[in-house]
Amino acid sequence: MTRDAPAALVTRDAPAALVTRDALAALDAADPLRAARDRFRLPPGVIYLDGNSLGPLPVATPGLVADAVERQWGEGLIRSWNDAGWIDLPQRIGAGIAPLLGTTPDCVIACDSVSVNLFKLAGAALAARPGRRVILAEAGDFPTDSYILAGLARIAGAELRLVARDAITAALDADTALLVLAHAHYATGAVHDMAAMNAAARAAGVLTLWDLSHSTGALALALDADGADLAVGCGYKYLGGGPGAPGFAWVARRHHADLQAPLQGWMGHAKPFDFTQDYTPATGVARLAVGTPPILAMTALAAGVATFDGIDMALAEAKSAALVRRFAILAADIAARFPALVVEPPPPGRHGAQLVLRHPRGRRVMAALIARGVIGDFRPSDRMRFGFPALYTRFTDLWDAAEALTQVLASDEWRDPRFDALGVVS
Amino acid sequence: MTRDAPAALVTRDAPAALVTRDALAALDAADPLRAARDRFRLPPGVIYLDGNSLGPLPVATPGLVADAVERQWGEGLIRSWNDAGWIDLPQRIGAGIAPLLGTTPDCVIACDSVSVNLFKLAGAALAARPGRRVILAEAGDFPTDSYILAGLARIAGAELRLVARDAITAALDADTALLVLAHAHYATGAVHDMAAMNAAARAAGVLTLWDLSHSTGALALALDADGADLAVGCGYKYLGGGPGAPGFAWVARRHHADLQAPLQGWMGHAKPFDFTQDYTPATGVARLAVGTPPILAMTALAAGVATFDGIDMALAEAKSAALVRRFAILAADIAARFPALVVEPPPPGRHGAQLVLRHPRGRRVMAALIARGVIGDFRPSDRMRFGFPALYTRFTDLWDAAEALTQVLASDEWRDPRFDALGVVS
Repeated sequence: MTRDAPAALVTRDAPAALVTRDALAALDAADPLRAARDRFRLPPGVIYLDGNSLGPLPVATPGLVADAVERQWGEGLIRSWNDAGWIDLPQRIGAGIAPLLGTTPDCVIACDSVSVNLFKLAGAALAARPGRRVILAEAGDFPTDSYILAGLARIAGAELRLVARDAITAALDADTALLVLAHAHYATGAVHDMAAMNAAARAAGVLTLWDLSHSTGALALALDADGADLAVGCGYKYLGGGPGAPGFAWVARRHHADLQAPLQGWMGHAKPFDFTQDYTPATGVARLAVGTPPILAMTALAAGVATFDGIDMALAEAKSAALVRRFAILAADIAARFPALVVEPPPPGRHGAQLVLRHPRGRRVMAALIARGVIGDFRPSDRMRFGFPALYTRFTDLWDAAEALTQVLASDEWRDPRFDALGVVS
Repeated sequence: MTRDAPAALVTRDAPAALVTRDALAALDAADPLRAARDRFRLPPGVIYLDGNSLGPLPVATPGLVADAVERQWGEGLIRSWNDAGWIDLPQRIGAGIAPLLGTTPDCVIACDSVSVNLFKLAGAALAARPGRRVILAEAGDFPTDSYILAGLARIAGAELRLVARDAITAALDADTALLVLAHAHYATGAVHDMAAMNAAARAAGVLTLWDLSHSTGALALALDADGADLAVGCGYKYLGGGPGAPGFAWVARRHHADLQAPLQGWMGHAKPFDFTQDYTPATGVARLAVGTPPILAMTALAAGVATFDGIDMALAEAKSAALVRRFAILAADIAARFPALVVEPPPPGRHGAQLVLRHPRGRRVMAALIARGVIGDFRPSDRMRFGFPALYTRFTDLWDAAEALTQVLASDEWRDPRFDALGVVS
């Protein structure tokens, strides 16, 4: 997906000698996505490398949220469900997300959390494959996915089978209803070949459900072309919807008429304001709405999604990959000096917009880095995770972050036991 | 629960001749809750009688939301999960709601929507009553409740049985796992005797799950004393959390150790940041959290809940009842002049903070009223619903609303067919 990217960005292995601050500054100057940084309000003195966990504040968000609070709610009151278009907001946001997924606007809806949406779609998939009772998922994926699937399996009388990454295809059998995979892995950044996995699943009569939390807004996606069945994704990472923003759900159009989630609420009813006793699902993904949509959170999510207006995702993916590779080179230099630091090399081929450095005292090292204004996060037992979203990360940020990391490791800063209290949200 | 209310408020049947504007103004002047109106930003020229559907904007909310957006998120970024206390917000809000429910702070958590919370607790109750496969609920309750329960029954292999209000107790049998009831009915305002229903259910080995959407912040509740098992409620009506605010869930402490919802996500894990593959539920209601909490929406909900600081709910219930009765008297006078209008008398005993007037063209009449700045809502087929929250509704508002209704009915205003487009959210 990097075919349209400038040559400077797609250099696979820039020699360490070429990764100088001047060379990085030159890449910034030539960056076709440079102007997108102005869409965010980034605090001075901070190098933010955790947008893969919580995206930074878009410039437009405070005004739009204040308008939703003060004018739409405060003055419009209940009338704003119609007058301000609140009632359609989940689908309008879904339509805005659609180009990032490689799909059409009517196949996406913003609603609930990733976890709740996963339950809905996995439950719908089980019901759509009667006689098949196995949910297959990858061991070591983001934990909420296995928690949710285990809870679903318990109530639905199904079985959750967690298998290693290289055993997934072989595990697809006639008992398997559904394969649930994270497209980009939250910890390693490894990316599945979506088209290949969909094809393998389809050949076995298995539906696919993709968790796109670490892909949406980071990688160029092509759900329709790749033949996916179902997907969910996160609104608060790359999409910039704010802390705990609603997630989204996607359903391939060929399944629109048949799929019915176990979570069926009035907002997914064909005619919610008729207040009938029996549930008649709305057309298409509109039926995935459950309760009343959280308008203030949705307003912030809409503003976050709008930061992708006009962005070529192939270019964004190529830029993030270039950032990751260059940070890996800088980190390898540091690791040569401080051998307790280990660089987890980016997986071959496509990978998420992140890099993991391991250190036995990683929690303290990351906390000391954050105290220096370089913000990443920590995942047990020893992973320091750095994210490189394309819209606002600068190549020179890599240099400055590496400098800070060197200073932390060369000093006693990271030995402060208070830093063990660090705990941040994925 | 009206024992502490001033005599003026508890007059059961004020004669029509006594319901004059001067008499109502005197009640406002003597209203011990009068000052609470200053906690809300109510638009000039509007009489808002729809706070039972969407509460108005609290004065404190815009500043608190702006702070959450600009300082906590914009400047604090990911650090605010710890530094701004985001991670505990659902439980701190729950603790704030607890006094309104007659329970202790550790039994309530703010999360998800009413519908999703209903699914969680009903699913948990089914699992806690193995061998019993019937979910009993009242026919004609708010539709999302029956939609959700039907979806749950389908996936869990259970049966949803909807029975008429007067047949509920008799229907409690050895097959029944769970009784789901709205405490105050969304359309009629009828209120169940919670202690009696809990006792009847308990005698039959049945768990109770109360939908408190139209009770919380409207009626004095005593969940612990009344022996309830489970409850959910709404954040955007009386609680003033804003459009689509998160709901809440309550679990009696005796069930804390045993209940496990089918929706189990990482935020309800005992140690979410250990990222273990297996799910270990957190202690108490904390396990009812699923996905990452929506902080902007939670911030607004916290501000709404804070409008009840220091409010005596027995007094609030008594004031709303007094408002309802007086509006019924005024409406009866109007109905005598315009016989197409029918007053649905408030149910005997306790009732919700609302009154329903029926009119064959109710949708248009309500739309014409709204055009005059008197805002209620409409429920098919012919119900105009008016709500009387105690914290900001004035007795003189009743007079002015009745005047506007008279003018609408005496004119052709309500005959405008454009008004048929009215559709507002409960």
